[in-house]
Amino acid sequence: MTLLDGLATSRQIKSELAQVVKEMTERGERPPHLAAVLVGNDGASLTYVTSKVKSCEEVGFRSTLIQKDASITEIELLQLIADLNSKADLDGYIIQLPLPKHIDEKKVLLAVDPSKDVDGFHPENVGRMALGLPCYLPATPGGILELLRRYQVPTEGKHCVVIGRSHIVGLPMSILLQRNRVPGNCTVTITHSKTKDLDQICKQADIIVAALGRPEFLKGSMVKDGAVVIDVGITRVEDSSKKSGFRLAGDVEFSSVSPKCSFITPVPGGVGPMTIVTLLQNTLQARLARN
Amino acid sequence: MTLLDGLATSRQIKSELAQVVKEMTERGERPPHLAAVLVGNDGASLTYVTSKVKSCEEVGFRSTLIQKDASITEIELLQLIADLNSKADLDGYIIQLPLPKHIDEKKVLLAVDPSKDVDGFHPENVGRMALGLPCYLPATPGGILELLRRYQVPTEGKHCVVIGRSHIVGLPMSILLQRNRVPGNCTVTITHSKTKDLDQICKQADIIVAALGRPEFLKGSMVKDGAVVIDVGITRVEDSSKKSGFRLAGDVEFSSVSPKCSFITPVPGGVGPMTIVTLLQNTLQARLARN
Repeated sequence: MTLLDGLATSRQIKSELAQVVKEMTERGERPPHLAAVLVGNDGASLTYVTSKVKSCEEVGFRSTLIQKDASITEIELLQLIADLNSKADLDGYIIQLPLPKHIDEKKVLLAVDPSKDVDGFHPENVGRMALGLPCYLPATPGGILELLRRYQVPTEGKHCVVIGRSHIVGLPMSILLQRNRVPGNCTVTITHSKTKDLDQICKQADIIVAALGRPEFLKGSMVKDGAVVIDVGITRVEDSSKKSGFRLAGDVEFSSVSPKCSFITPVPGGVGPMTIVTLLQNTLQARLARN
Repeated sequence: MTLLDGLATSRQIKSELAQVVKEMTERGERPPHLAAVLVGNDGASLTYVTSKVKSCEEVGFRSTLIQKDASITEIELLQLIADLNSKADLDGYIIQLPLPKHIDEKKVLLAVDPSKDVDGFHPENVGRMALGLPCYLPATPGGILELLRRYQVPTEGKHCVVIGRSHIVGLPMSILLQRNRVPGNCTVTITHSKTKDLDQICKQADIIVAALGRPEFLKGSMVKDGAVVIDVGITRVEDSSKKSGFRLAGDVEFSSVSPKCSFITPVPGGVGPMTIVTLLQNTLQARLARN
């Protein structure tokens, strides 16, 4: 069993990115610039955004954190987005979700200029991804592809079962893995809450992407020998044995699943760190497109 | 076994559309207007375009057929598209494919204003479809959904196997059938030329959409009892017993498959007529959006 070490891989990619940025600045070019918009003061959101900003600094990107009070109106936020769209020295930006209830997330996401949509959430980017055109890959699926690529995990002709059909992970993952690319060319089954006989379906899979957000859902009994298992879940579960009172659990019961696997991602340190790497790669791509 | 009669269903929908248009014009409103651009003089393309134009007339839409010589340059075609985009009394248009080799189809499709893209081929429409936002459905998958809807074929929790991953049929079909909609909520497996054990995969399917373009590929031995089979293929095959010397064959071997089915589409008269109906529905939707 080989551990797909997202942490080590993300460090490697970050050092590659830092090298590219170093060369850019040595040539007198402006480094990539990412902005992150945070509305309100949700603790988890602040953690995510801070981590993204910190990663930008690590690789030499410029970053701008824009914090707005939860009382911001939808019109004010849309005006901010219009400003960000027109800023010439800003390559890409993200709006950290979720937004307060009085703001229509759909309207906000549609207002983002697709050329600055480094989260890959705008329909134009989703469509480009589906059609195999140049696009910003959504962060989590993009990170998973990169991990499969770096570890040279064989995918062609493999049967991949994706558990979960969210717009940011399950659905794009299912689209990306069936494409005629490397990694890709999988036979892909997308499953969800309405799926029957999920155990049986999983047992047939060469590759399983668990992205349903239920801690330790996937058990060893649902996995065949030699499977590749990608664990996208990350949930805090109570654990009185820990000083903090909790631990981070993935969607995969690692103890029973990992002995059967050819490759498996740990939680934490698997998919998570790779997600931020995709965001950085997208931002560099946006910067290069603005030349 | 129930035949999913696309011809009868398309006639019914056309009469409903004609009624809507009649009421529009009686209120003094402009009827929907579709333009079709045909480049060159490929016989099959001319047949398709003519049939689309004729269908417009049947339901009271205005239609414009724009024929251009195969020698048109890419720049001239892009200029024509810019003109069509800006025409206020034109609701939607289609560029009949394929285009001559000296023209970049990708560039042409990206030039179409997504709000007039009634073929649903532009990435913005593809992305909107994937995200469940309002969009123009691609014609063939849209027609299949409508057929399933009208015949009240149960889809929730069913395992659907899509054979073929083309951008205009297989891939969008796989996305549409997994959505949390009616019809939808299928567990969907998308298969293609790199898929292994396709026979075994098909035998598990409650619903099969055959869209690979290989005449009579799907045999009775690949289908389980009670399956729903949708045949998207339509290929001319030689047949010396016919006066014309050929017959139209689907991707399904009807003689061996149909006895096992709960529902099946015939070829011709199944998916084909439904495809044009989606184009008409999209054009009406485009007209209503311009109010």
